[in-house]
Amino acid sequence: MVNVDLALEARDLVRGATGQEITGVSEEKQEFPHGTVTIIKILDERAESVIGKPKGAYITIEAPNLRLKLPEVQSSVADILAQHLRSLLNLSDAASVLIIGLGNWQATPDALGPTVVKYTLVTRHLHQHMPHMVENYRSVCAFAPGVLGVTGIESAEIIQGVVEKVNPGVIIAVDALAATNISRLGTTVQIGDTGIAPGSGVNNNRIGVNIQTMGVPVIAIGVPTVVNAGIIMQIALESYQNKTARGSRLSPVLSKEVLEETLKPFEGSLIVTPREIDDLILNAGRTVTRGITLALHARVPKEDLEALLC
Amino acid sequence: MVNVDLALEARDLVRGATGQEITGVSEEKQEFPHGTVTIIKILDERAESVIGKPKGAYITIEAPNLRLKLPEVQSSVADILAQHLRSLLNLSDAASVLIIGLGNWQATPDALGPTVVKYTLVTRHLHQHMPHMVENYRSVCAFAPGVLGVTGIESAEIIQGVVEKVNPGVIIAVDALAATNISRLGTTVQIGDTGIAPGSGVNNNRIGVNIQTMGVPVIAIGVPTVVNAGIIMQIALESYQNKTARGSRLSPVLSKEVLEETLKPFEGSLIVTPREIDDLILNAGRTVTRGITLALHARVPKEDLEALLC
Amino acid sequence: MVNVDLALEARDLVRGATGQEITGVSEEKQEFPHGTVTIIKILDERAESVIGKPKGAYITIEAPNLRLKLPEVQSSVADILAQHLRSLLNLSDAASVLIIGLGNWQATPDALGPTVVKYTLVTRHLHQHMPHMVENYRSVCAFAPGVLGVTGIESAEIIQGVVEKVNPGVIIAVDALAATNISRLGTTVQIGDTGIAPGSGVNNNRIGVNIQTMGVPVIAIGVPTVVNAGIIMQIALESYQNKTARGSRLSPVLSKEVLEETLKPFEGSLIVTPREIDDLILNAGRTVTRGITLALHARVPKEDLEALLC
Amino acid sequence: MVNVDLALEARDLVRGATGQEITGVSEEKQEFPHGTVTIIKILDERAESVIGKPKGAYITIEAPNLRLKLPEVQSSVADILAQHLRSLLNLSDAASVLIIGLGNWQATPDALGPTVVKYTLVTRHLHQHMPHMVENYRSVCAFAPGVLGVTGIESAEIIQGVVEKVNPGVIIAVDALAATNISRLGTTVQIGDTGIAPGSGVNNNRIGVNIQTMGVPVIAIGVPTVVNAGIIMQIALESYQNKTARGSRLSPVLSKEVLEETLKPFEGSLIVTPREIDDLILNAGRTVTRGITLALHARVPKEDLEALLC
Repeated sequence: MVNVDLALEARDLVRGATGQEITGVSEEKQEFPHGTVTIIKILDERAESVIGKPKGAYITIEAPNLRLKLPEVQSSVADILAQHLRSLLNLSDAASVLIIGLGNWQATPDALGPTVVKYTLVTRHLHQHMPHMVENYRSVCAFAPGVLGVTGIESAEIIQGVVEKVNPGVIIAVDALAATNISRLGTTVQIGDTGIAPGSGVNNNRIGVNIQTMGVPVIAIGVPTVVNAGIIMQIALESYQNKTARGSRLSPVLSKEVLEETLKPFEGSLIVTPREIDDLILNAGRTVTRGITLALHARVPKEDLEALLC
Repeated sequence: MVNVDLALEARDLVRGATGQEITGVSEEKQEFPHGTVTIIKILDERAESVIGKPKGAYITIEAPNLRLKLPEVQSSVADILAQHLRSLLNLSDAASVLIIGLGNWQATPDALGPTVVKYTLVTRHLHQHMPHMVENYRSVCAFAPGVLGVTGIESAEIIQGVVEKVNPGVIIAVDALAATNISRLGTTVQIGDTGIAPGSGVNNNRIGVNIQTMGVPVIAIGVPTVVNAGIIMQIALESYQNKTARGSRLSPVLSKEVLEETLKPFEGSLIVTPREIDDLILNAGRTVTRGITLALHARVPKEDLEALLC
Repeated sequence: MVNVDLALEARDLVRGATGQEITGVSEEKQEFPHGTVTIIKILDERAESVIGKPKGAYITIEAPNLRLKLPEVQSSVADILAQHLRSLLNLSDAASVLIIGLGNWQATPDALGPTVVKYTLVTRHLHQHMPHMVENYRSVCAFAPGVLGVTGIESAEIIQGVVEKVNPGVIIAVDALAATNISRLGTTVQIGDTGIAPGSGVNNNRIGVNIQTMGVPVIAIGVPTVVNAGIIMQIALESYQNKTARGSRLSPVLSKEVLEETLKPFEGSLIVTPREIDDLILNAGRTVTRGITLALHARVPKEDLEALLC
Repeated sequence: MVNVDLALEARDLVRGATGQEITGVSEEKQEFPHGTVTIIKILDERAESVIGKPKGAYITIEAPNLRLKLPEVQSSVADILAQHLRSLLNLSDAASVLIIGLGNWQATPDALGPTVVKYTLVTRHLHQHMPHMVENYRSVCAFAPGVLGVTGIESAEIIQGVVEKVNPGVIIAVDALAATNISRLGTTVQIGDTGIAPGSGVNNNRIGVNIQTMGVPVIAIGVPTVVNAGIIMQIALESYQNKTARGSRLSPVLSKEVLEETLKPFEGSLIVTPREIDDLILNAGRTVTRGITLALHARVPKEDLEALLC
């Protein structure tokens, strides 16, 4: 079992190790003008335990040019995100949505969720107090629970408390992810219908954010913003090993030693990220916000929504 | 009945209008090296309705030199704040505390509460997972609920949800206040034992944050960071009127007209504040955080706390 | 002589006081879909001393709906700004431009200039090192000199030093302005061809930024982000006086006393601004950046520029 | 010849490769309560070309506990920094100092220099306009030139322009550095008397900031805030190689291939840094500011300076 944030990478790692397709996992690939969408479904418990992700659908949008910050690419990715999000949400017009921005707005690489909350178009209060203004808009609210080290409270506990007050029909939880592949930073978006598992994501919380803990479906949206420093070193070691002595294997004991010595004294908290991380967060946050907004307010003309998003 | 954030100013306004002491209101004044502490108690319902503040104790620390950002003054004000906060809290060692930072971290003049959350020393998670590390520390958690315009959810609803999960013994709610007197900006701290009334504070929420809505005592700490632009104009008009024609009174109709014409089209959202508002928020936030921390962890040596606060 | 940042307001104040047109001042008004453009020309030295602004052209764009942050309005204002800026600049294709962002990025109400620098598309370094990439683009560089209180150096001195190294054909200096009328906050843009006079702008520098001090033409672009707190009070007093006793005049001695008492101890540094000042700065900054960019790179298709501006 | 920011690491790399002391390089080690100071002197041109650093003195303060943000450690490091800085500066009381904060305040890992400028106590303008207020203070000014990608102008050109206006006796240039060893992040301070070489530092400028380009001595102060992602992978490969097959050498061709494949498409811009990089920058910035301030105003009592630094 592996422990990585992206189902696509987890699947590839397992497939890479075994050299064959994994039973209980389906895959569908679609092209769009600026990239690829891969829909992986984990169909049974065996696949669940092999891949290390709960049963469900994982939609991965890959758009290498998203890094270039071109509005045309951002807009195209937001459209694709909206389309797939809408199919997963499958909401009645009346259902209300709670958007959760996980992460820490005081640690730049981890600020994706709060950035989405900041830019989200919220309407729940208008539905309560000026309903005529928002007739065609879904009721949406948004909220950033902070992180355990700043609040002293598990994010999931805070969210549970808010869910009990707000009673949303569905939760969309946005979080920064860690990838294993550098080229994914700021260019991949994962949408999943199983929420956020305990101990996953950039902040390892002990309680998951999912239908079991929240009582309503949780759609998770994530963008890789970092690669764990240990993983990138491990990959370098494996890649070198493959090049020099195909067939022979990396010593797990020695490579563990190397990583521990090199990453000491920071260990898990060291990340690989572009120097321009502030920019990456802002751009990814705006693209995700745009995709969510287009998905949620399907009865509002797109140009009206875009006017409100700038 | 007046509607101002500081009980001291509300009392002065009522006294100014009637020219005499108000029954049902007690006052006590104390000096400290860098300023004055005034304890106003609103003792009965008649006084409550005249002053426009719920029955309870309102402690106002005034330190004109706090504006100068001298560590000596900040430290002295934090000590006084800690002392009075401790007397209001009257907590057993085992009681846990939830600190709420009201306001909007994306609107600088309104960011006092989130700034205090950012700097607060939280220990609740350590009590759960590494209790030996925090033996002498109280269990403290902290949290910024955001504002209605950003989240679509009343702050009080979010807080209720969190309180039900966290079960604190007491809540300390920190908020930016509006004063009527410019000289109070960044130099006055109010501590009150009646929480935050609906519709008060810089963000006019519809639900209060108090023992009635939260089920536990709520201590409110506020620092004036703005003066409402309408109020400063009203004061100018009254002051001029007094100088030219003592005895005659300002026309309420005309002065209302003047204010409306001048403040249009922003109305209530216009504030008077120093250009260096970013600095004021940072300094006030750090002084309040220091005072709270000293008050809550009475069993930890002061120098240890100060080491953790920088 | 009056001392206000906007020539339009200065002209109105003088005209208001004298009740007639001012000789040596020409005016032209144009409408555009979202507002009005007023071109005031100060033609001779007499007018210069009456209005308190150097001889030259002052173009004022007024768009009340710019406050609403609608992309359509922002885009329309940017187009108008670009058109008038281009006519003032009158540049050959080869001329290079230095954009100066005046103000303090650590004091939100004063951060307009640095915000424009942050968003500006700079090309000077590409012209030096990869000229083929920027064939159709003008050579543009941009720079924020900071403020005297943070650097200890007059902005104008720093700019002079940079100008001597960069040798631009023209300087565009962007600054936050103070208006006398609240309704202008974030909705008015002034373009002037006389640079920035000493002692004007939100930061009262002792040396001007103009053709005399820099040796090249200086176009100034400003947006009012604050109203001086004293001015708004003065206006309230005058307006009330007019309403009660038309014909009689406000006592300058008494009104000065009122202002001094009320604004103490902050005096000049107190400003009136919307609580959402962070938003206002961001939106004004982006609109100004867009206008400048469209004006400077006239040979690049508009959609290419807009792609680079987001 | 190697190309690393810290002279200490460059020296160790060379010594590691050759297995012996390097002629033309002297070393002196001192202990202080929270760490070690190593003074490396590069004495001749041969050593210069072997180490890849210009002739001069490089003082490295290593304080592993600086990461813990304890005021006691920060204060101790600031004292040591002040002491060694003062010995390198060797200034008359009348000499004025220009502090340059290199780097990009919009890219968190690169914001050390601008952070120091933000916190620096500047006095040059007071010496000009209110000299009696700053009698015992040295004339100090400070300035952040930005980075080439934002301004379109080489930092060194901007600095030259400012130096010609300000005529300082000495320049102190502060910059974020890249280390090869993770444990140095936020815990090492290097002071050097040879300024900043072209192409070094986190931003590879083409022109150096040194006595040759500026005409006055340049003291450089740097703190490692990142490790280049390629370097950390290279180190992992070498370390693994050493563990498996002592004596055999890493293939430069293959390891280059591995790095290129893994770091594509970001290449040089990928960094390793702690997730809490915002915190690291703030803390390092404040410690360096404190050290500089104590060094420059030797005639002012330390407690007065500390009061001004908070």
